[in-house]
Amino acid sequence: MEYRVDIHVDGSVRTAMAKEGANLLEVLEEAGILLYTPCGGRGTCGKCAVRVSGGGTEPSGNERRLLGERLEKGFRLACSFAVDSDICVHIDDSGEQAVILTAGARRHVVADPPVKKKYVELPHPSLGDQRPDLERLLDHTGAESGGKGLSDLTDMGMGPETLRKLPALLRSSGYRVTTVEAWGRILSVEAGDTTANLYGTAFDIGTTTVAAYLYCLNSGKLLGAASMMNPQRKFGADVISRIDRAKASRQAADEMKNLAAECVNGLTRQLAKEAGIDVKDIYAAVFSGNTTMLHLLAGLDASGIAVSPFIPVTCRTLRLDADDLGIEMNECGQAILLPCVSAYVGADTVSAVLSSGMYERDGISLLVDIGTNGEIVLGGTDGMIACSAAAGPAFEGADITFGMGGVTGAVDSFKLQGFRYTVIGNTAARGICGSGIVDTVAALLDAGAIDETGALADERTAAGLPREVRERFTVTGGMRSFVLVPEQETGIAGPITITQKDIRGIQNAKAAIAAGIETLVAEAGISYDDIGKVFLAGGFGSTIHIGSAARIGLLPRQLADRVEAVGNASGSGASECLLSRQMLRSAEQIARKIRYVELSASRIFSEKYIENMMFM
Amino acid sequence: MEYRVDIHVDGSVRTAMAKEGANLLEVLEEAGILLYTPCGGRGTCGKCAVRVSGGGTEPSGNERRLLGERLEKGFRLACSFAVDSDICVHIDDSGEQAVILTAGARRHVVADPPVKKKYVELPHPSLGDQRPDLERLLDHTGAESGGKGLSDLTDMGMGPETLRKLPALLRSSGYRVTTVEAWGRILSVEAGDTTANLYGTAFDIGTTTVAAYLYCLNSGKLLGAASMMNPQRKFGADVISRIDRAKASRQAADEMKNLAAECVNGLTRQLAKEAGIDVKDIYAAVFSGNTTMLHLLAGLDASGIAVSPFIPVTCRTLRLDADDLGIEMNECGQAILLPCVSAYVGADTVSAVLSSGMYERDGISLLVDIGTNGEIVLGGTDGMIACSAAAGPAFEGADITFGMGGVTGAVDSFKLQGFRYTVIGNTAARGICGSGIVDTVAALLDAGAIDETGALADERTAAGLPREVRERFTVTGGMRSFVLVPEQETGIAGPITITQKDIRGIQNAKAAIAAGIETLVAEAGISYDDIGKVFLAGGFGSTIHIGSAARIGLLPRQLADRVEAVGNASGSGASECLLSRQMLRSAEQIARKIRYVELSASRIFSEKYIENMMFM
Repeated sequence: MEYRVDIHVDGSVRTAMAKEGANLLEVLEEAGILLYTPCGGRGTCGKCAVRVSGGGTEPSGNERRLLGERLEKGFRLACSFAVDSDICVHIDDSGEQAVILTAGARRHVVADPPVKKKYVELPHPSLGDQRPDLERLLDHTGAESGGKGLSDLTDMGMGPETLRKLPALLRSSGYRVTTVEAWGRILSVEAGDTTANLYGTAFDIGTTTVAAYLYCLNSGKLLGAASMMNPQRKFGADVISRIDRAKASRQAADEMKNLAAECVNGLTRQLAKEAGIDVKDIYAAVFSGNTTMLHLLAGLDASGIAVSPFIPVTCRTLRLDADDLGIEMNECGQAILLPCVSAYVGADTVSAVLSSGMYERDGISLLVDIGTNGEIVLGGTDGMIACSAAAGPAFEGADITFGMGGVTGAVDSFKLQGFRYTVIGNTAARGICGSGIVDTVAALLDAGAIDETGALADERTAAGLPREVRERFTVTGGMRSFVLVPEQETGIAGPITITQKDIRGIQNAKAAIAAGIETLVAEAGISYDDIGKVFLAGGFGSTIHIGSAARIGLLPRQLADRVEAVGNASGSGASECLLSRQMLRSAEQIARKIRYVELSASRIFSEKYIENMMFM
Repeated sequence: MEYRVDIHVDGSVRTAMAKEGANLLEVLEEAGILLYTPCGGRGTCGKCAVRVSGGGTEPSGNERRLLGERLEKGFRLACSFAVDSDICVHIDDSGEQAVILTAGARRHVVADPPVKKKYVELPHPSLGDQRPDLERLLDHTGAESGGKGLSDLTDMGMGPETLRKLPALLRSSGYRVTTVEAWGRILSVEAGDTTANLYGTAFDIGTTTVAAYLYCLNSGKLLGAASMMNPQRKFGADVISRIDRAKASRQAADEMKNLAAECVNGLTRQLAKEAGIDVKDIYAAVFSGNTTMLHLLAGLDASGIAVSPFIPVTCRTLRLDADDLGIEMNECGQAILLPCVSAYVGADTVSAVLSSGMYERDGISLLVDIGTNGEIVLGGTDGMIACSAAAGPAFEGADITFGMGGVTGAVDSFKLQGFRYTVIGNTAARGICGSGIVDTVAALLDAGAIDETGALADERTAAGLPREVRERFTVTGGMRSFVLVPEQETGIAGPITITQKDIRGIQNAKAAIAAGIETLVAEAGISYDDIGKVFLAGGFGSTIHIGSAARIGLLPRQLADRVEAVGNASGSGASECLLSRQMLRSAEQIARKIRYVELSASRIFSEKYIENMMFM
């Protein structure tokens, strides 16, 4: 038995067919609609709520608990809903139109990409010049190719397939060819002069979002940028869920790899189309991302990352045929996966260090990239140490009652005075994102509505607060909470509140980051006064209000005056490595230079973590 | 309509089915019987004669001319015969049981093969030792692997497929693994200690025969040798026929490559079986051979070799995955194709120079490998020059009326006194091979039965010869000839003779070789007295009688006292390269050191060639 599912999304209707008992989340996925499912579809996060009319099995206990009154309005968790009749699904409330930073701060780099083209007109062979085809070519493509490099034997100079095509190509083109070179080898030979067509892409493969950049490798010019949600998120918001999924079976691992490739291919095609170039004229792609994302992209077994003692397969730069990863571009195209430091300090951090320039800055800098894990790097030219603090997903909106990503409908700033707030996309508020949460907690701390232990003022302690503040206290899901946006102003059923549990989540998260910073400072034997600059990387780092972050103790108050947001520094670093071999070498050097400090084995961290649970 | 073809061969009968009009040569090939077809099945050499009873179309003009009286006895050319009824085919007279040299002179080389194994017991990871899997492995496999070599970026240390399998392998084996290394990289990782299983093969891919050797790479011990006819010979005896065939279509090129691979695989399986080892424990194969044979093995387009100005695709050492060539061994197995000098001075010559040791010998040596092309190398430690003289196939028995290869039934020595001759395999004579032909011509020259212009004595000039010699003159195919083996002693219908045309063929061939030697001597500005040693390589060089060769002017008479036959020096050189990286490097150096002299552009050669047409 098959049922009809009409899906109302973004003002239009799509129709899908579903077998009896089909999971609605999967039906939607097949129809091309990916919902935000931080829990991986386990029915525990409540983020995949959609409005369903026309049927459905009895709501589960989870649905009752997570949806509460919304259940009566027809909301159901797609992950927990089995289709048993023709239905209508409304997901106009999901609003997952990501607003992602697609360009960080880029320094000027001299275009010297790892993949290059060279046009040559070769002398025709004669009895006086009997050089073999390959030698004839290598002799005229300069010093970089062939004959060197490998310790044991002369390198072939090119792969066997290129060598097999070479003679016919030379003869048919009248010995006028363009070589494509990388790593001192000829990757490909093309007839005639094709040097003008040489493009490359850079990617930041985030756990949540994937950002892509298209460059002309001759000029170094940025031709376009695009981003999309990481389609792997259907298996969970965090890296552990995805590793668990990938290790379940060979098939699951392949699916995870293919999802990454499809995402990259989709962005590549979009960028190429918008720029009016041929995907086949793209010869290199550089990938930044955390260690797990790059493992999954490369098809490497990431299971060692998920469990103590947290062992990746490799942290080296990986140079692979794009074809090996299922990534579309020229058939000789190269995929370069940037180096990582450890299981939880990935290429995204290395890229951010590169892009921030802290590795060549005099004095000591601090770099913080706040996400589910907060990666923290401390140091400079003389050496760097790094750690990864498990902050949990609170700053990304997960595990927060009305939390959501930094997308349309999210409250992203809040002030107690006049209860002023802003909403991404200027729409009615549907939830609250990281920067909004931090603002709210900071404001409530300032007002004394939260005490230093993190407790929301109770009936008694709230008595001293102004009336308009007192009136905002309410109860959400049986828990004391504070109304951020009253019901009449929201785009959802009911008010948007921040609960006592949410505040505990923020306490945990900020304690982890702060303790991570303090641990590195202690490891380095320095004081905050020695830190000349703080780089805040990543989307959250760009939107957060420094004053609020310092107020809640997420960042050291003493350093608030020297903070610089560097945006998507991971994507910028990847772009720099695409355009410059020197930057690629620098990334390698950075990855080797950074000493990793394992916090789960650090007594200092444990102590600092407890200390930082308090609001001071 | 299908017909039954009963094939009588080696005393047994095989049955094949053939479609109406099927070509008999192809029917036999499909039945696994390869006939010797120097002309490539064009109906011009007459070597594929078989006895057919039971039917057949009318004999062609070629068949009448080439088979003469044998036609009446039922002989037909298989290549020209179309099946049109049930038939019986007798091919017991083909006798192509090759007697091939399978071991040249081997010097002692220290076993240091290009592919090595190493067993390691790695420390288990911990929070205090979080090295990635790859780093953990590379740190314990010594200095040779990873981290070096490539100019631009850290090498990955292993290929992506190996990297993908690494984590599971380390964990399942308890971190006790064996690495397979080559070229400073880890090719493969195996669970447990497998170091004892490490074998390799060396091949000499001759145009006519393929010789194979199996070695233990730990001890350097030879475990077995085998050889077979090159199955590509069904497309012609010479390299030009095969290049023509391979360039006809992509399919034909693939077929040519596959034939080489199948031959190599057949020999590999045979050697492994006889030695009681597993083919999967073979990790390296080194290939010697002429430039064309190696191009066809590698699937390279050899068409530039066939036409002036004679341009190969490459002369470099080729290191390929055996899998890429369709060659069976361990899945990480490496195929190493030795370097060549030019289109007609191949790896077989480089190997022979290596194996002879002339490249490191004080003073000047001469190396001559006589085949369809005579490759000649002159020089020593201070430098070498080489050329290739187109001798034609006379010394290999082709284009000689009763010529055949050095196989069972071939007359391989002859003396006029008592008309004594020897036959390979001690059977009745069925033809004459190179060394027998040279002996015969030398004997007839000594007796005055051939004059200095190469003319066989006519009625008038023969008058002065002994009666028993005079009585041996006869007419074969309308041509004056000399009976080598009278009819009653042969294993064929009729006597074995050498004709005036055969003598002209020998004159041409020996003139080419002699002129090649003299050209190099002139190029080097030396005299014969400066040459301390002459190395005769190849099967023909081992069987030829030096006195006879000097008598007919094939080798300089002054050097006859310093000639040393070095057997299948090409196979020996390949073996040395399999066992020793130093030898592999030496082969590279030799290939680069040898300066090629193109005879087709040499005025000296043309003059010397004319001079040497005479018998002196």
